[in-house]
Amino acid sequence: MLGCAPRLDMPPIADRGPVVVTGGAGAIGAPLVRSLLEDGHEVRVLDNLSSGRRESLGRMLDNSGVRLEIVDIRSLDSIRKSFSGAKAVWHLAANPDIRLGTADPRVDLEHGTLGTFNVLEAARTNDVPRVLFSSSSVVYGLPEVFPTPESYGPLLPQSLYGASKLASEAMISAYAHSYGLEGHIFRFANIIGPGMTHGVIYDFFEKLRKEPKRLEVLGDGRQSKSYLRVDDCVSAMRLAEAKSRERVNVFNLGTTDRVSVREIAELIVAAHGGHARIEYMGGERGWPGDIPQQLLDVARIQALGFRPALSSLAAVELTIRELASARHR
Amino acid sequence: MLGCAPRLDMPPIADRGPVVVTGGAGAIGAPLVRSLLEDGHEVRVLDNLSSGRRESLGRMLDNSGVRLEIVDIRSLDSIRKSFSGAKAVWHLAANPDIRLGTADPRVDLEHGTLGTFNVLEAARTNDVPRVLFSSSSVVYGLPEVFPTPESYGPLLPQSLYGASKLASEAMISAYAHSYGLEGHIFRFANIIGPGMTHGVIYDFFEKLRKEPKRLEVLGDGRQSKSYLRVDDCVSAMRLAEAKSRERVNVFNLGTTDRVSVREIAELIVAAHGGHARIEYMGGERGWPGDIPQQLLDVARIQALGFRPALSSLAAVELTIRELASARHR
Repeated sequence: MLGCAPRLDMPPIADRGPVVVTGGAGAIGAPLVRSLLEDGHEVRVLDNLSSGRRESLGRMLDNSGVRLEIVDIRSLDSIRKSFSGAKAVWHLAANPDIRLGTADPRVDLEHGTLGTFNVLEAARTNDVPRVLFSSSSVVYGLPEVFPTPESYGPLLPQSLYGASKLASEAMISAYAHSYGLEGHIFRFANIIGPGMTHGVIYDFFEKLRKEPKRLEVLGDGRQSKSYLRVDDCVSAMRLAEAKSRERVNVFNLGTTDRVSVREIAELIVAAHGGHARIEYMGGERGWPGDIPQQLLDVARIQALGFRPALSSLAAVELTIRELASARHR
Repeated sequence: MLGCAPRLDMPPIADRGPVVVTGGAGAIGAPLVRSLLEDGHEVRVLDNLSSGRRESLGRMLDNSGVRLEIVDIRSLDSIRKSFSGAKAVWHLAANPDIRLGTADPRVDLEHGTLGTFNVLEAARTNDVPRVLFSSSSVVYGLPEVFPTPESYGPLLPQSLYGASKLASEAMISAYAHSYGLEGHIFRFANIIGPGMTHGVIYDFFEKLRKEPKRLEVLGDGRQSKSYLRVDDCVSAMRLAEAKSRERVNVFNLGTTDRVSVREIAELIVAAHGGHARIEYMGGERGWPGDIPQQLLDVARIQALGFRPALSSLAAVELTIRELASARHR
């Protein structure tokens, strides 16, 4: 029988074997790859380089323990052999742009839901015992409870992106219970740091680059969310991997404070010399599918000992400083 | 802005227009088609006749208001034109056999998740304003709360079938919020009645037909679930359709009592003359992916006025009598 009981008596599955990281050239994937390498893993990075970049892996690619394979996750045949002998798969590959998924609903079905199915099939048919997945707070839809716990329901996502994350979670749970994999599901707050290709901070910098005197803000600026620095995100995932031995392990990953869009806009304008005029377009949401309020209950990951190095505000400020500094180089 | 607020002030969308019923030749689909016809709808039945049967529609097919189209829901092109001008789509088509989905994980991905995506795309591109979906109590996985309310979480399905139901719910929610459809999600208890092609009652009759002296029961017989007669299921869905005007409406559909597998086995053996020996194979679950305990909180549908004509036990007894009587004909 496949039960849900904690398996705290089991040793961690082979600590130093080869692991697969899908989306490993992305903004979260690359620091994760670094962390895994530092722990002595051989890392097979699968990425289609659509938003991930080879440069994000930098000198890690000189390490004989890292192999970058440019593949399309929509094709099971193109990824299956990379899973041979792997001890775990970290599945981070996805369309990162929620709005693109609304414009073309097939994007999240194929790169999200079908991609996860292919990862799970590649894991199952290669006897990979552990799957770790980057889900998102957007599975909660518009929650009525803040901070929102992992047990919140009903789960009614607002976007096709959110639907593909929930569909992926559901398949991971089913594979875990049907075929004996161990599943880890991480529901991310907004993850920020170097290498971002989307998100409000990145978008505001792009807007000011094109039009330095005016910053158009979608919504009324009162959307307020928690942010987690990417290094903290990686630390939390590695901690959960090391300490969680249930059949399916679900963790919110975030901080306990929030930052509003208005605060972010003002910080970014200040970092640009304070000359731009901020214009709010109005409305509670930035765009259809936007989740205006987000704050996750992170008691579960805290109970494992997790304390983020940076609060939401500190993470936002650091990320803005980095982007402003890069702009001046 | 697309909100979640009740829209009780809106009139029902065109009461008598054409509607699509996928899986409309199935055990639940056919009585639903009858109900829709009786209310004056033109009904387009889409079915691949894999488990549904043309005969289940019987003389309804002589009615000019009914059209049976034998199509494969995995192909958007093959279903899209049938949605033209429709006022609603009832999406019931799916693989009905949970165990088949474990043997071949692609079955529920394609007939379930991809099928729902195609239905939603066909609805969206034809401006069909309402989608009603047959989900299942298995989205709750192994719940720890009984009766289980619609707000229960986390949703960790045990089977690929359950994963495809949750993935479908998630896409319906996303389409509703992204494109303005109205979504109805019905989480079924075990629905029983004429025309069944699977499920414990059907399986036991099949076993006794092949081996009249011995009834092998998977599990220890203590699995206990609630059952809902198919006519009550159809009544509940039609009631929710008429009275619920939120963007996404989620309803558990079931009864307030349960029947154990042991009781069902004994009733069926008695209906066969009482000569068969019942042999329990042991274990809490019948098979991997089985949900041994199921009882839904049905307060939400009751609040709309729903009262099932038959309790779980009465529904089980009637269904057994019908099957036994058919056996003697």
